[in-house]
Parts: sequence; structure tokens; C-alpha cells
Amino acid sequence: MIAVAERINGMFLDVKKAIQKKDPGAIVDLAQRQTEQGAKYLDINVGTAAEDQQAAMRWLVETVQGACSTPIALDSQKLSVIKAGLEVCDGRGLMINSVSGDDEKLDVYMPLAVEHKAALVCLTMTKEGVPQNVETRVEIAMNIVAKAMEHGMDMPKVFIDPIVLPITVDQKQPGFLCQVIQQLKLLSDPPPSTIVGLSNISQGTSNRHLINRIALVMLQGAGLDAAIIDVLDTDIMDAAITADMLLDRMIYSDSYLKAARM
Amino acid sequence: MIAVAERINGMFLDVKKAIQKKDPGAIVDLAQRQTEQGAKYLDINVGTAAEDQQAAMRWLVETVQGACSTPIALDSQKLSVIKAGLEVCDGRGLMINSVSGDDEKLDVYMPLAVEHKAALVCLTMTKEGVPQNVETRVEIAMNIVAKAMEHGMDMPKVFIDPIVLPITVDQKQPGFLCQVIQQLKLLSDPPPSTIVGLSNISQGTSNRHLINRIALVMLQGAGLDAAIIDVLDTDIMDAAITADMLLDRMIYSDSYLKAARM
Repeated sequence: MIAVAERINGMFLDVKKAIQKKDPGAIVDLAQRQTEQGAKYLDINVGTAAEDQQAAMRWLVETVQGACSTPIALDSQKLSVIKAGLEVCDGRGLMINSVSGDDEKLDVYMPLAVEHKAALVCLTMTKEGVPQNVETRVEIAMNIVAKAMEHGMDMPKVFIDPIVLPITVDQKQPGFLCQVIQQLKLLSDPPPSTIVGLSNISQGTSNRHLINRIALVMLQGAGLDAAIIDVLDTDIMDAAITADMLLDRMIYSDSYLKAARM
Repeated sequence: MIAVAERINGMFLDVKKAIQKKDPGAIVDLAQRQTEQGAKYLDINVGTAAEDQQAAMRWLVETVQGACSTPIALDSQKLSVIKAGLEVCDGRGLMINSVSGDDEKLDVYMPLAVEHKAALVCLTMTKEGVPQNVETRVEIAMNIVAKAMEHGMDMPKVFIDPIVLPITVDQKQPGFLCQVIQQLKLLSDPPPSTIVGLSNISQGTSNRHLINRIALVMLQGAGLDAAIIDVLDTDIMDAAITADMLLDRMIYSDSYLKAARM
């Protein structure tokens, strides 16, 4: 499983303060610790920490790039903020997070992703709203795949996010997500990749860590490729790595938990 | 998930000693604690603790029946030992564990199960050996289902066990088991139930508890109904209950972990 580390996000107080004071210490520390714990991408999200989000994104990207060589995921709903991050990228592995499944958005983000050799997270939602069933999610994903072909994207770099909803809202959703993930693997050859922003599933519950990691393992069983998670949570990383091992995606050895983090 | 509690087994030293001394204390304690932790059946296996296995089985069954009202699973490879247990059963819920998929065995065990209104664990192995692929397991299961119809068994009481092999032997096995479990659900309407003896998967590894519980969650995601596990391991029970909740098999509430154990 491709772990996208979620902690460099302005919604966390330590990151917010670091951005506001332009104090690299906490950011460097998070970048290095998340890398040591097996992050394959470091998500970078300015959040609401700065008025000038573009400047904040540039500073965060440069600070992270100075701290490690881990690929980064530029995370913003604003194109201008994504572009600010792209300006200072040093050519390492890159992910753009995220774009909705509307044609007019895909026609802007996909050429940008191709130009920067970046992976692109595409949400199965449109301006019509967020679908809660299997069929509409798969329909939107089919359009995303067609657009990716049109724009000459490398299909495994298209990360389709079927959108996780809180379990307190609808207990049928995890089952639906498993079905969507299985079906997306049949859309093309090679198929697009799949990703989820996991923690939303446990919003409002009293057992967030447990629910997150059990949901992750079930989605991995259905074929999930990547997830935005807290890689500093040892239990969820151990669970994800063990699922990979049981799914024959890495070789078993007595030290497989350690080996997977290198 | 139907948790079949594994601890009343003569291969454990405390149970072995209790059997040899006819000292009910440890057995009563295990019966009650496993019940409190959510066991739906208490597995009873004499193991190698006694020369007279029939007498030992009768004593164990009577001791457990005196301690709680939880259904029991009579566990032996010997028909005479199963019959000894059946002689003293008090009419509570019952499981017979287990019989191979050979016609001549099924023709003996299935009428016995029907007579005692017992669930019956049927292994997807025959005198030809233990299959390691999907197809042969499903073929044997098809024969088991046909035999169950012939003998008038209630299909959900037929628990097909696709046989778990150690991950150190073959890492493709968990994926195969998921496929088998999915396919067994299509064999009849209503379909047979599915069960695994879980702990075999982690034999020879250094992370037995972790590997057991992650494997269990993946098999639940594929549709597994029951497992023979250590219900006194809080982590595996929490994982199994959370998977059930995420699969919409029980209603979410803040106290779902507690509610599932009642």
C-alpha cells in the first residue's frame, strides 16, 4: 500500500504555528519522522494557516524538500495554490491532490499533471454532488479514465478516490467502497490506481484509530492501492503492511514490518 | 462473525492438567470468561490429555454445561469421541467439528448432525489430500452442499472450512481463501456458512496475534461467517467486531464493542 502521510497540514496546530512563524523545525521533524515510518508521499496542505496560501505552500514545499527526498503530494482545492507548489518543486516524485470529476476541471489538471510527471488524485464527485451509491461513482470514474486516455496520462498515475463518508452517516458505505474499488480495476488495462482519504470514516466515533485501521484492511482486501493516513500511528501502519504481506504484495520474513518501512 | 472460542483444548497445559485431575475450576473459568468475551460457541477438544478420550469428552461437556448456557462445539477427529460428547449434551446449541469431504464420512456425520440439530464443520479435504488451489476446494464444497441437500440439512448449519495454511508455506493462500469464500456464497440459496481455524495462518511467524487478526478482517471482508479464535485476545475480538460493524452486520453505537459481546 502506498501510504500518503497526512500530518503536514495547517489544520494541525503545530503545523499552523510553524507556517505562521516561518519556523522550519516542526516541518522538518514531521517530514523526516513520517519518512522513517514508511510514507511514500508526504501530503502538504496549507489549510487555513496563512492569508497568502501560495506563499505558504511554496515555503512548505521548499522546507520539506530540504529535509528529505520523499515524494510530495500537493494538497489544495485551489489551482493557484497547487501551481505555487509546482513552481518550486525540485523534480522529485509528485502527486496533485485533488480534482473533481468534472470535464472542465480534468481538462485543466490533467495537462498540468502530464507536464510535471505527477500522479493526480481524481475524486468521484462532480458539481452535481457527492454520490453515495456504487453506480454513480463508477460512472464518474469511467469518465475520468476516458479523459486520462485523451490527455495521454500514464493510467497507474491516475488515483481515483471514491470518497469515504463517516460510518455514522451510513453503514452501507464501506461495502459500497469495496465494490467500487473492485470494479475500478476492470475499467482499463492497466487499470487506474485507487486511493482514499481514510480518516473521514471514523468522524464522530469514539474508536477512531481502530475503525480507521480495520476499514483500511478491508479496502486493501478489495484492491485499494493507496491511502492518506497518519503514518505515525504505528498500529495502522502495522495493519496496512501485514495486509500487503497477506495479499502477497511483499515477501514474508520475520522482519517484514521493518523491511516495509525502509 | 460467529466466534468459536478455542481455549478449552487439551493441548493447552492448564486444560490438560484439569482433565487429568478432574478438576473443574480451570474449565469453568475458561467457559465463563470466553462467554463474557463474546464466544458464540465454546469449542471442546480433549487433545492428548487422556487415555480414555470418550470419558474425558463426557466430563468436559458436563463441566462446561454446568458453568454456562453457551452453545458448544464438539471437536475431535474421532467419531467415537464426538458420540461420547453427544450422549451427555443437554439440548443447547451444538456444533460438530469436523468431518472431511469424503462421501462415506458425510453419509455418517450428516445424519448425526440432523438428529442432534447440530451445525457441522465440513473440511474441503478428502482422503486424496488437502487442496491448495481454489478450484479443488470449491469442487469438494459443491459435493458437501449436494450431500447436505440429500440428507436434509439446514444449509446455514453446514459450515464449510476451506482450510487455512501457514503464510510461511505459501503467501498466495489468503488470496485464494478469499476467492473460495466468495464463491461458496453462490453455491446454493441459502448458501452454506463458512468457517476457518484461523491461527494456523501465523504458525512459525513472530507476529502471530497481528497476522491472525489482519487475516481475519480480510476473510470477513470476503464474506466469512465464523472463525475458531482466541476470544480472550481482546485485540482480535475488537477487530472482528469492528469489521462486522463496517460490513453493516451490526448497528453502530458508541458502545458497539461492548454491545457485540453481550
